[in-house]
Amino acid sequence: MKLYFEDLKPGRVFKSGPILVEAAEVRDFAERYDPQDFHLDEAAGAASVFGTLVASGWQTAAYSMRMLANSELANIANGLVGLQIDKLMWHQPVKPGDVLSTEFDVMSRKHSRSRPQFGVVQLAWRTFNQHGDLVMSLENAIWVAVRDV
Amino acid sequence: MKLYFEDLKPGRVFKSGPILVEAAEVRDFAERYDPQDFHLDEAAGAASVFGTLVASGWQTAAYSMRMLANSELANIANGLVGLQIDKLMWHQPVKPGDVLSTEFDVMSRKHSRSRPQFGVVQLAWRTFNQHGDLVMSLENAIWVAVRDV
Repeated sequence: MKLYFEDLKPGRVFKSGPILVEAAEVRDFAERYDPQDFHLDEAAGAASVFGTLVASGWQTAAYSMRMLANSELANIANGLVGLQIDKLMWHQPVKPGDVLSTEFDVMSRKHSRSRPQFGVVQLAWRTFNQHGDLVMSLENAIWVAVRDV
Repeated sequence: MKLYFEDLKPGRVFKSGPILVEAAEVRDFAERYDPQDFHLDEAAGAASVFGTLVASGWQTAAYSMRMLANSELANIANGLVGLQIDKLMWHQPVKPGDVLSTEFDVMSRKHSRSRPQFGVVQLAWRTFNQHGDLVMSLENAIWVAVRDV
């Protein structure tokens, strides 16, 4: 069933996951998009400010996007269309073997003034590891179609 | 030559790119991390709010990270360690065949109060296509070692 602006009431929470962080995928992402030694080499990771080999922060964001796209929010009628990201923070290292899960909370919403058939919904993303530690959080404005214009 | 906090004076600009957005890589990223039909199928893209098949916004961020990691800023002594992202906006669709380039501007900096051997530097990232259109921008706080503590 499609989701519209009217369905995304502040306080509603959508959960998704878990997914396993696989070593091969961490290496592949780092080689393509973030080829720094602390993302590619155990010894370099241990010597880095992280103290361990760590996945690229952008990969944690991408994994979280995968979980969003696999959540009930994927049923938004016009798709998941991001307008802006704020307060994206990486709180803890994410390592191969970690298991991630996500919560997406509807924080607020407002109708578009310029295009009344749409509204802007503010989501808070929170990504956790298998220990329940918050590893990443962000705020995300998305563009959502109105059912009854 | 390694870069330290002292080297990152406000107003300094680092450029990087260009890179080609390849159709196979757009499909691969979308299948892994953002499997929405407007990222995977030409007809679905044409019918979407974008009016065209469009790369995931997170892939544009990842491509921009690749360019940052290939820029002179990769010489920061402790690596490129992001603390926070704000005001990430996607201004124009990015499509297969586009050619992206980036500018990274040092906006401001301050010494860490808790760890005097480090400072926080605010970068503005701007990503452009081959027409000179701004396709993505963001603000990024990074963690940078001080040379002379």
